Amino acid sequence: MGIGPGGEDDLTRRAARAISEADLLVGYTTYLQLVQKMSCYHGQEMYTTGMTHEVDRVKYAAEAARRGLKVAVVSSGDAGVYGMAGLVLEVLEATGQVAQLEIIPGIPAANTAAALLGAPLMQDYATISLSDLLTPLPDILKRVEAAAAADFVIVLYNPRSNSRRDPWEQAVAVLKKHRQPNTPVGMVNKAGRAGESVKLTFLEQLDEHEPDMLTTVIVGNSRTRVKSGRMITPRGYLL
Amino acid sequence: MGIGPGGEDDLTRRAARAISEADLLVGYTTYLQLVQKMSCYHGQEMYTTGMTHEVDRVKYAAEAARRGLKVAVVSSGDAGVYGMAGLVLEVLEATGQVAQLEIIPGIPAANTAAALLGAPLMQDYATISLSDLLTPLPDILKRVEAAAAADFVIVLYNPRSNSRRDPWEQAVAVLKKHRQPNTPVGMVNKAGRAGESVKLTFLEQLDEHEPDMLTTVIVGNSRTRVKSGRMITPRGYLL
Ligand SMILES: C[S@@+](CC[C@H](N)C(=O)[O-])C[C@H]1O[C@@H](n2cnc3c(N)ncnc32)[C@H](O)[C@@H]1O
Ligand SMILES: C[S@@+](CC[C@H](N)C(=O)[O-])C[C@H]1O[C@@H](n2cnc3c(N)ncnc32)[C@H](O)[C@@H]1O
Repeated sequence: MGIGPGGEDDLTRRAARAISEADLLVGYTTYLQLVQKMSCYHGQEMYTTGMTHEVDRVKYAAEAARRGLKVAVVSSGDAGVYGMAGLVLEVLEATGQVAQLEIIPGIPAANTAAALLGAPLMQDYATISLSDLLTPLPDILKRVEAAAAADFVIVLYNPRSNSRRDPWEQAVAVLKKHRQPNTPVGMVNKAGRAGESVKLTFLEQLDEHEPDMLTTVIVGNSRTRVKSGRMITPRGYLL
Repeated sequence: MGIGPGGEDDLTRRAARAISEADLLVGYTTYLQLVQKMSCYHGQEMYTTGMTHEVDRVKYAAEAARRGLKVAVVSSGDAGVYGMAGLVLEVLEATGQVAQLEIIPGIPAANTAAALLGAPLMQDYATISLSDLLTPLPDILKRVEAAAAADFVIVLYNPRSNSRRDPWEQAVAVLKKHRQPNTPVGMVNKAGRAGESVKLTFLEQLDEHEPDMLTTVIVGNSRTRVKSGRMITPRGYLL
């Protein structure tokens, strides 16, 4: 299940009920800390491990479900977008438990970020993760290039970490080849959480910015513009 | 604001509160009918017009807001994805009312459909509308081609209507040039509403299907597969 950006107001009723009815909550520490602040949390057991222990965590969840517990595996945003839904499905397939699975969608970071920026996603868009942990960098850059050349609005997830700056720098270089220097770029950090920030900049100034792993970046298409401090990609209605 | 696929359980708390506190609800007839069934509806005034009267509707909403009313302009899914957010922003920009605007995200049809199908969006994906009312068909097909060639999972909105079949037929032809015949394709119709249906098929059998304007179509990438009746695009964890 996905909890959206982080606050209780951004959860669907279905998601709040799933948390409320669960015997066991499984997820990253950060996400479970967000859940602990919600009114749907009333002391349910929690199993949490740090980053990169995804497989262990999901196997633990599957095992608990086999023992008859109701388990909620919690992702931020939507569970199906660079979240846990795929891995949970693969593990339950291997253990023959798929029939018991319900996937509960949440609002993806792309849509939360877009709403804070204005309306940048009104035209066709491509969602790309810059994390090269599980995908080779050349494949990622090929997608950035294809999306840029076909004039998609581009949403970048996992843009940059202190130890992983290469994908970001190379992606920005590819974008500059295809888009005008004055292309609007929006950056939303910690959407819906303490410390939320929303920035609007332009492709030519992107080198001055250092997004991190809690930032979603939205790069406009050739028609995106900034007006009254909001980023908008016109759909083409005649006013 | 976006209400997600249609049922009250799919609304965020923020969205339910916005409806509840509004003096006036504005939107397509179908969406307002869905809202009328929700517990956040308690007799608020409604202004509704059919399809293709978007501009009129939004101007009416802006005028009412100027008179001091709290107005909720309702989209299905997420308001920022082929919804009303962009047009509302453009109209309020023209009338100098932007500062009063809050955009409330909802779960896009892509993510609702994905959750019902399994986990098809675990890798980079492109969202494309096949409606050529506001976008020239060659631009649409260029995006389908670029996304197919760069191995994006592809989400097709507004796939086909009785009077508009060309974009669908041509998009399918482009997809067949780039993807294997056994590429999984998911089709979700009326997600979250009465008559919901979920179908899994393959690219080579797509000609036998006739999606309509309430269908979201998800075309897998080269690694997407179907197992235990679910569509999954593996992210690459080693099990
Ligand atoms: C592993 S992905 C998870 C995405 C999530 N499942 C979703 O649908 O939004 C993590 C990335 O999502 C984005 N993200 C997640 N939460 C965010 C937030 N609250 N504000 C901004 N970006 C966020 C960032 O790009 C981050 O690097
Ligand atoms: C004008 S667009 C609106 C999209 C909406 N704003 C969103 O974020 O999902 C209409 C298209 O969205 C998709 N759609 C909307 N609601 C749907 C539902 N309940 N089930 C399946 N597809 C839906 C269909 O592709 C439809 O042609």
